[in-house]
Amino acid sequence: MSHRHTELLEQAIAACRTREHFSPFPDRPGKDEASLAAIEQARATYEATLGGSFLLDQPSKGELLGEEVSPYTGEDLGIRYPAPDVDAMFDAARRAGTIWSKVEPERRVDLCLQIVHRLHERWYEIAHANQHTTGQSFSMSCVGSGTNALDRGIEAVAYAAEAMRRVPTSGHWEKDFGKTTVSLDKRYRIVPRGTAVVITCASFPTWNAYPALLANLATGNPVLIKPHPTSVLTMAIATQVVQQVLREEGLPPELVQLTVDSADAPIAKDLIAHPDCRIVDFTGSPGFGSWIEANAHPAIAFTETAGVNTVVLAGTEDLQATAAAIATSLGLFTAQMCTSVQNVYLPGDGVETPTGKVSPDEAIEAIVAAVDALSNNPRRAAGVMGAVQSPHTIGLIRNLEAEVSRQGRVARPAGTYEHPEFPQARTCTPSIASVDTSARELFGEERFGPISFAITCADADDALEQALRDVRAKGAIASHVYATDRDYLDRAADAYVDAGASLTMNLTGPMPLNFAAAYSDYHVTGLSPAGNACLTDEAFIAGRFRVAQVREPSA
Amino acid sequence: MSHRHTELLEQAIAACRTREHFSPFPDRPGKDEASLAAIEQARATYEATLGGSFLLDQPSKGELLGEEVSPYTGEDLGIRYPAPDVDAMFDAARRAGTIWSKVEPERRVDLCLQIVHRLHERWYEIAHANQHTTGQSFSMSCVGSGTNALDRGIEAVAYAAEAMRRVPTSGHWEKDFGKTTVSLDKRYRIVPRGTAVVITCASFPTWNAYPALLANLATGNPVLIKPHPTSVLTMAIATQVVQQVLREEGLPPELVQLTVDSADAPIAKDLIAHPDCRIVDFTGSPGFGSWIEANAHPAIAFTETAGVNTVVLAGTEDLQATAAAIATSLGLFTAQMCTSVQNVYLPGDGVETPTGKVSPDEAIEAIVAAVDALSNNPRRAAGVMGAVQSPHTIGLIRNLEAEVSRQGRVARPAGTYEHPEFPQARTCTPSIASVDTSARELFGEERFGPISFAITCADADDALEQALRDVRAKGAIASHVYATDRDYLDRAADAYVDAGASLTMNLTGPMPLNFAAAYSDYHVTGLSPAGNACLTDEAFIAGRFRVAQVREPSA
Repeated sequence: MSHRHTELLEQAIAACRTREHFSPFPDRPGKDEASLAAIEQARATYEATLGGSFLLDQPSKGELLGEEVSPYTGEDLGIRYPAPDVDAMFDAARRAGTIWSKVEPERRVDLCLQIVHRLHERWYEIAHANQHTTGQSFSMSCVGSGTNALDRGIEAVAYAAEAMRRVPTSGHWEKDFGKTTVSLDKRYRIVPRGTAVVITCASFPTWNAYPALLANLATGNPVLIKPHPTSVLTMAIATQVVQQVLREEGLPPELVQLTVDSADAPIAKDLIAHPDCRIVDFTGSPGFGSWIEANAHPAIAFTETAGVNTVVLAGTEDLQATAAAIATSLGLFTAQMCTSVQNVYLPGDGVETPTGKVSPDEAIEAIVAAVDALSNNPRRAAGVMGAVQSPHTIGLIRNLEAEVSRQGRVARPAGTYEHPEFPQARTCTPSIASVDTSARELFGEERFGPISFAITCADADDALEQALRDVRAKGAIASHVYATDRDYLDRAADAYVDAGASLTMNLTGPMPLNFAAAYSDYHVTGLSPAGNACLTDEAFIAGRFRVAQVREPSA
Repeated sequence: MSHRHTELLEQAIAACRTREHFSPFPDRPGKDEASLAAIEQARATYEATLGGSFLLDQPSKGELLGEEVSPYTGEDLGIRYPAPDVDAMFDAARRAGTIWSKVEPERRVDLCLQIVHRLHERWYEIAHANQHTTGQSFSMSCVGSGTNALDRGIEAVAYAAEAMRRVPTSGHWEKDFGKTTVSLDKRYRIVPRGTAVVITCASFPTWNAYPALLANLATGNPVLIKPHPTSVLTMAIATQVVQQVLREEGLPPELVQLTVDSADAPIAKDLIAHPDCRIVDFTGSPGFGSWIEANAHPAIAFTETAGVNTVVLAGTEDLQATAAAIATSLGLFTAQMCTSVQNVYLPGDGVETPTGKVSPDEAIEAIVAAVDALSNNPRRAAGVMGAVQSPHTIGLIRNLEAEVSRQGRVARPAGTYEHPEFPQARTCTPSIASVDTSARELFGEERFGPISFAITCADADDALEQALRDVRAKGAIASHVYATDRDYLDRAADAYVDAGASLTMNLTGPMPLNFAAAYSDYHVTGLSPAGNACLTDEAFIAGRFRVAQVREPSA
């Protein structure tokens, strides 16, 4: 059969090879009149969803549940989802999976790209939903959780397509045994591993969910999506889109189902322990991620959690630009990203600059000033910082600041900014602690949310070694070094890579430090406590299917 | 630098694509005078090893241990190996691994093929060692444990080479952010996962050890080989060969070390629990294999254990040829292979043949007659059956025969044959039980060694369903169906593949049912309790290394 997305697939496969920039979708929401109208229309569609029941094609126990509250309005979204009937859903998934496993791999791949296409059609609507569940700004919801996330999804499909293409469908084999030649015809079949449970996080669900969902579907596996109970709607719409595509193709919609739970009665462990669960994809806390890695068996687990993201500021050609880059990472989505930086290590004997050494306190002041400039501009703050997903985060920051006061200095206390559109928005501007290396029990682990540590070390070598301690002990998803000495940079690169971490060097300018590019960046190495899976590489695909063969004497 | 084995590598990579027969080595020991002299010379080298200390370049606690007894002579080999100093060995492995990880992937691959080449140079000597530890015949030691095992090793290197080639070493990336174009140079580095523990089995160590050893080395990881305490020598020679190659190349020999233990004080679990253990490759019992899969974390585990290998004999064009094929599998290496068949399912209403239906009892008689013909020819029996590795196996067969007498009929009791060369050889001819499907507690799991079950079912459909019950519950490594009805064969093929198992149909002639061809057969699907790993596919490689990247603004 002909496929609709062949060109897109080949472009994506090529981009994975060249690692160049590629995206089939616009990078930002449109600003022309048609786009503005479409955004308003999508808002109306989103608002019509509020307070209603969100039904899907899947077994349910009949009850409804939902506990989503907008971080922007403080109001209950009022959306109620069908409570899952776990056994019935696994059964339905298995039945749907049996049919799906018989669909030719190339057609499965094409349908996955059709799903991407259809998700993109509801781009703005999903962005509104994403904004009011995660707290991301509308533009981040369009870009990071929209275009970038869809690109990561396409990328996973490209890896899956290539991996399956490399398995031939048949072969002819001949070998002499003594005086006789044995001739066998062999057929090779891709066999999906089985039902996958995809567990998504509260603050950034699509970016990991799309790759996991699509990698599983492309390789033939049914999927149960288990969203965070306070951040369901985006995944509900995604499930609806997939089910629509499947129905249109005459395929069972139960191939992808949504299993909603509540904070009081979580079901993730029940899903993982279910005998039909064969794959777990998880994004969330390092603690639960490690538990899953250790306990998912016989399911295989793919995790992305969090590490301690470090900046070593040994030297810079432009202190203001560097301070601004760090400030943006501290503020971007209120530091609720797995790539947000947390620990900024400074040499006690000064940061090298073109005008000579700058003391750690001066460098910290430059960062604080950049954060202030961002925080004091409500319009810009709204676009960059958005809102805080969980009220717990605010409490954690307050408690940490109290701790910091005892062991160091709060160089910049957390504050709020006035959101120009949503006066009730739960905002929080970055808190910056100034400490020395003796305060490791404060900064030596991930502190979720907008708190960071400026840590004064002995010198540049010590700063590097202190940062590497975090990386080795807790893993890292984004690591940065600023220096003017090439030898130092080379040593740093080797040390991070040897520690199983990726490194960005001397990045300033409009690209946020947090940015990871689909097709180009190996996001998460998979070698540290910050996650065992890369989004995306061949290891993200390989175990999701296997090969069974049938051989018989040639006719 | 130039590589020595480029042509071999490219040929192997091509064979993995076409799935055609390929081997760079002779299939059988030579029969010319020079070969016979070389075999005798190798025997002398082997014999000179007996009773001595086998020292290697690795830390040791000073003591020596060894408990190998030849299944052919009944005599203690008297070889003593250095007792491992586990912590010191992991430390030495890590230091060696740091150096090895900096060796270019293509050079690592070439050195792996150099190791294969050097193992082949000691082909006959390793075969003598293998014969007197595993009980395999000399010719099987040359072919199955020699050429075929080396081919599986090369195959793993080919997959590793391809997987690493698909990771570009660098890339240039450009993207507009607003009005600014951001340009980044990116470098991508293969990062090995860490020290691997390769646990080998008593009866067939090389066939799994070579792929695991070489897959780990090619992807940059140090290896500790943990052989079965009664079957050490082959792995000791392999370790010696690797260490010699490494020394010649100026690389640390401790990259591969041998950790010998004893039946009384096993160390496998200590090795796996060591904080430096990052990869486990295991061949052995399903029980310990499942334990490793569930408990190896944070190490990743690759297991090949055993399932229940079934034959469904619904119909055949040639009953004698089919009976002979089954008989050879029951006898080959005294059924001590992971591909030995165990359960033969027969339709109670008769096996279809060109001359009409043949009753189950007649079919069983044909198999018994074929086994008798093999067993009563000592010269042929010696070449096919070899000897029994462990004395425990004989006891298990006797106990099972006593059980069978209570629930069915011993259609052919186990016996012995007189080995023409080694009168003390521990030989055992196949035991065949005739039972019906009610005796499932006898045949429903793997029974290691030369005992098989001829199981009379209702009809051909029931026979297929009964066999699939084994496959679904316990997994299978080799499954066979004989039938004359194409629809039945197609249904069987689909059912086995859906159950995650590979199937061979209607195979008779000189190729043993047990044979799995390197480059062509996906050995073990990885989808069943018979093992989570295929030797070899991309999933066997993917997790052994990851990618870390370094990105910085373009100059």
